[in-house]
Amino acid sequence: METPQQPDNNISPADRDGLYKTIFSRRDVRGQFISDPIDDAVLSRILYAAHHAPSVGFMQPWNFIIVKSQQLRQQVHDLFKQAHEEATAMFPEEKQDIYHGLKLEGILESPVNICLTCDRQRTGPVVIGRTHIDTMDLYSSVCAIQNLWLAARAEGLGVGWVSILDEQKLKEVLNLPEHVVPVGYLCLGKVSHFKAQPELEAAGWLPRLPLEDLIYFDGWEKKLPVEESLLLQQLKADADFPADCAG
Amino acid sequence: METPQQPDNNISPADRDGLYKTIFSRRDVRGQFISDPIDDAVLSRILYAAHHAPSVGFMQPWNFIIVKSQQLRQQVHDLFKQAHEEATAMFPEEKQDIYHGLKLEGILESPVNICLTCDRQRTGPVVIGRTHIDTMDLYSSVCAIQNLWLAARAEGLGVGWVSILDEQKLKEVLNLPEHVVPVGYLCLGKVSHFKAQPELEAAGWLPRLPLEDLIYFDGWEKKLPVEESLLLQQLKADADFPADCAG
Repeated sequence: METPQQPDNNISPADRDGLYKTIFSRRDVRGQFISDPIDDAVLSRILYAAHHAPSVGFMQPWNFIIVKSQQLRQQVHDLFKQAHEEATAMFPEEKQDIYHGLKLEGILESPVNICLTCDRQRTGPVVIGRTHIDTMDLYSSVCAIQNLWLAARAEGLGVGWVSILDEQKLKEVLNLPEHVVPVGYLCLGKVSHFKAQPELEAAGWLPRLPLEDLIYFDGWEKKLPVEESLLLQQLKADADFPADCAG
Repeated sequence: METPQQPDNNISPADRDGLYKTIFSRRDVRGQFISDPIDDAVLSRILYAAHHAPSVGFMQPWNFIIVKSQQLRQQVHDLFKQAHEEATAMFPEEKQDIYHGLKLEGILESPVNICLTCDRQRTGPVVIGRTHIDTMDLYSSVCAIQNLWLAARAEGLGVGWVSILDEQKLKEVLNLPEHVVPVGYLCLGKVSHFKAQPELEAAGWLPRLPLEDLIYFDGWEKKLPVEESLLLQQLKADADFPADCAG
């Protein structure tokens, strides 16, 4: 069955640059949340954007659990604290102090938390595109998280993804059934400011990798000399972005 | 260490609408690819956008294997054909004909395939944020795929994610080491047109779910009556998007 076409060129160069600006200025926010409430019209747009993520077999396996209850957020924060202590002990001794001092979540300071889940039984046991790679439904929920994150940034809101949690205990706190995975636990809210760089980069924990080092041609670790690749030359030129897109 | 702030309000309402338009008009493209080459400047921007995805512990676990070799793409297409036959047999008998007739990939028609991977050992065994949920690095690579997909759409290019493949055999074809996962095998190229609706929705395979049914409050399956939720009222109003954003 043929569906109508989209209008030609419905995305302008200015629209495109809006996307790029959003992508480059998106941050994982932990310490900059302010407690102002989020407008429901804004939140509805962000959820709508998340719901328009791609999903394997059009399964739409996600739910959005909006967590505002102070008591519930305190329980999740307790889970974070416990996991954070356990995590600290896993790092080499010389890195433990640095790790433990990092601000890694804004569960209580942000006005809204959202747990974005994946219902692995949403459309029955056999799903188009999930027959051979059974994590595809989880990946669909991650695509929804990335849409949500970008939409929030474009609305001026920060998002932080809290992954230092025991998944099974989080499921108990949120009363999730066995077949539902809490793919992302997100903190969402207005911020005092967005940082120009990712915090772990600014803190010297890890550098941003040169993109050209991550590109292979027709097989793992197959590289091309820059002279032979227009693509690598373009990457080095790095010229075509709007001026206020911080790399 | 404090980093400089981003310019205030660097994302305008027009930028935001550019993001929303892109999100709502992104499609999984299978049958509409044309063979025209992709400009290297465009491809470099798309890869740059992917590289600016969030990653757990700033791990940047992705690589981009650009697959243009006809021989390699033929090998991947053979893997698809085999998996597609296996998949057909998994569906209930009355759905097998419909399933088998669906066009589910554009491996040979698109000018470029990209395998986006996850190197699970990229920054050593202990990664900030991956200490308790060990799939977080795979999820980071998925975020990069979603950035790539949106950037491609904003550049007028289609992307199709091929997941009907035996992962182990794909690793052999691309010569991936054991610790590298081929998270997404993507077909990329110019298109004759973008469809107004997802193909599986248009084909009547599955409907788009009402977003309001997917939202819970403070726990699984905890719903609110519409009268008590401004958010649900906003979702029903659905009013604030640019006029040419197809829902």
